[in-house]
Amino acid sequence: MSTEMDFRAVIMAGGIGTRFWPLSRRKTPKQFLPIISEKTMIEETANRLLPWVPHSKIFTIADSVQTKGIRQFLPEIPKANMIVEPKGRNTAPSLILATAHIYLQNPEAVIAALPADHLIKDKRRFLKKLQSGASAAAQGAHLITFGIPPAHPSTGYGYIHFSKEKPANYGGDQFFSVIRFEEKPPYKRACSFLESGDYFWNSGMFLWRASVFVDKLEKHAPEMFVFWKKILAAIKKNDEQALTTIFNEITARSIDYALMERAQGVIVCQGDFGWSDVGSWSALPDIWGVDKQNNSHRGECLSLDSENCLVLNPDKLTALVGVKDLIIVDTEDALLICRKDLDQKVKDIVIKLNKSGRTDLL
Amino acid sequence: MSTEMDFRAVIMAGGIGTRFWPLSRRKTPKQFLPIISEKTMIEETANRLLPWVPHSKIFTIADSVQTKGIRQFLPEIPKANMIVEPKGRNTAPSLILATAHIYLQNPEAVIAALPADHLIKDKRRFLKKLQSGASAAAQGAHLITFGIPPAHPSTGYGYIHFSKEKPANYGGDQFFSVIRFEEKPPYKRACSFLESGDYFWNSGMFLWRASVFVDKLEKHAPEMFVFWKKILAAIKKNDEQALTTIFNEITARSIDYALMERAQGVIVCQGDFGWSDVGSWSALPDIWGVDKQNNSHRGECLSLDSENCLVLNPDKLTALVGVKDLIIVDTEDALLICRKDLDQKVKDIVIKLNKSGRTDLL
Repeated sequence: MSTEMDFRAVIMAGGIGTRFWPLSRRKTPKQFLPIISEKTMIEETANRLLPWVPHSKIFTIADSVQTKGIRQFLPEIPKANMIVEPKGRNTAPSLILATAHIYLQNPEAVIAALPADHLIKDKRRFLKKLQSGASAAAQGAHLITFGIPPAHPSTGYGYIHFSKEKPANYGGDQFFSVIRFEEKPPYKRACSFLESGDYFWNSGMFLWRASVFVDKLEKHAPEMFVFWKKILAAIKKNDEQALTTIFNEITARSIDYALMERAQGVIVCQGDFGWSDVGSWSALPDIWGVDKQNNSHRGECLSLDSENCLVLNPDKLTALVGVKDLIIVDTEDALLICRKDLDQKVKDIVIKLNKSGRTDLL
Repeated sequence: MSTEMDFRAVIMAGGIGTRFWPLSRRKTPKQFLPIISEKTMIEETANRLLPWVPHSKIFTIADSVQTKGIRQFLPEIPKANMIVEPKGRNTAPSLILATAHIYLQNPEAVIAALPADHLIKDKRRFLKKLQSGASAAAQGAHLITFGIPPAHPSTGYGYIHFSKEKPANYGGDQFFSVIRFEEKPPYKRACSFLESGDYFWNSGMFLWRASVFVDKLEKHAPEMFVFWKKILAAIKKNDEQALTTIFNEITARSIDYALMERAQGVIVCQGDFGWSDVGSWSALPDIWGVDKQNNSHRGECLSLDSENCLVLNPDKLTALVGVKDLIIVDTEDALLICRKDLDQKVKDIVIKLNKSGRTDLL
């Protein structure tokens, strides 16, 4: 790491990830599962930073239960860097709390906020872009984000409309002015985004200098700035009770909605490093690879006239006969059989289980 | 039981039943599984006889491994009644062996040969018809069978063409002359069978007096009668080695093919007692019953937009999302997902496993 820049990575590990039920549970949400490799996603997220960022500069933000999990999987990260939020209130409160912690150590520290549960295939390119993003954050009064070149007109991602005019250059990479953040669009609108060539997918990864974050918050999100001041005071006094009160009061809101969409001076760099948010079961065949029948499996699989299935059943044999387009996940206490294009409905199963009191399966 | 008639029931328990994999295994074939009720099929088969037939008159025929299973589930049957065949060679050798055993006890004994793995819903009616069949066997020189009124033009059953002219009456029931046994027909031929009203399904249940069986064998199946004599001699001498040699030589053939189809004087009684051979997984929804979405399950099942599925997963929750027409069977070491109309292919999975040396799963 550059000796001049005080770079800190904040891994956001607070999600609950019901879309990977029955594998993901309250105590083992997606980020603590070895979904994309033999390692858990949060280990992958930390490990891909290590060539550039030492453990001492990696922070995590999550609630106390999740932080126990983090400690288990990332014991090398100093305990003091594991920031505990009183309760999960979406990413804006999390990142205000994490930034406040770091701000008190060094207001000019550069912070990268990184989800714990994303896939990045080209780790080297990712680090290169992260360094360029950090340079941009260190040198200017920007909020910075990575935009993913859209591979198809997804209606499941937010989009970033950017200007191709006069991009700035940091670390050899281009940074474009953000015109507007767009919510998840209907299909036709998504198609027009792709045709224009002026849109990226919103990756949910952000960079800022702590002092710049405060300025932007004060200017563009005054109602959140109130909480910034309260949180900063609570940390200074090490007042956990106050922090709990604040987190009960603060609006649960994403950082996108609370700040990024409202702020001026947001720039975006193309995140062309093989990103996926691994949003649901159907994302996995691309990651695991497929066989000749386009089946993707973990665990022994015997297939007769079957295709396009995803099978996660590592401990026993799965036999498929004449089936297609299924997601099959077998765990110790639950079995899921789901039509592949309906995998967003898996969370409805979790809701149903919750309503019927089957908390043992959540 | 009538004091004049010496009635013996022979339960044929030698099948291997690969079509119920992964539940059925070499050591626990279909007849030893509690598929149609909480009891195993062979227990159901024996128990439905008990109101009329005492344990001392119930015999079983199976190989030595299967006979161990029989002893476990039917300990009340005398060990001497458990006839052990050196190896499974289809039903003709089995029934020649069993009939020879009983013939040596009483040549005028009436024998009912009953598969161990069939379902009979109306047990009372079954016993009534069995008694009538036994009367027919006791009083005349017939081979007797039950014909099932065909519910649909099945291509999976053999058919019995019978004559409606001048049926005989035994025990108040009509017995029709059999014109011909028909192999499993193509669909159109099956349709014409149903339209004619002169065809039953072949149930695989037969009755005969031992002495009549011998006569018919001698007259209509001379190549099998050779083995009858050898088997009779081996039993008399209690010569197990000779029996093994005979079973290595004898042609593996069904009793239908070896005798019933060739014999004169075969009569058939309508088996209208709710029979099913429970031939494959898709037979079970009719037996287990279905819910509003036409799903049938053993084990807790949570269904979202799913229909016509059969789920056997008693020890854990199964969640279905947007799937239909599936057979789902989860066991300790194997999971089967099969399109319902392809359940005949389950045996191909077993063949594949055998070829690849996965005998642990057979």
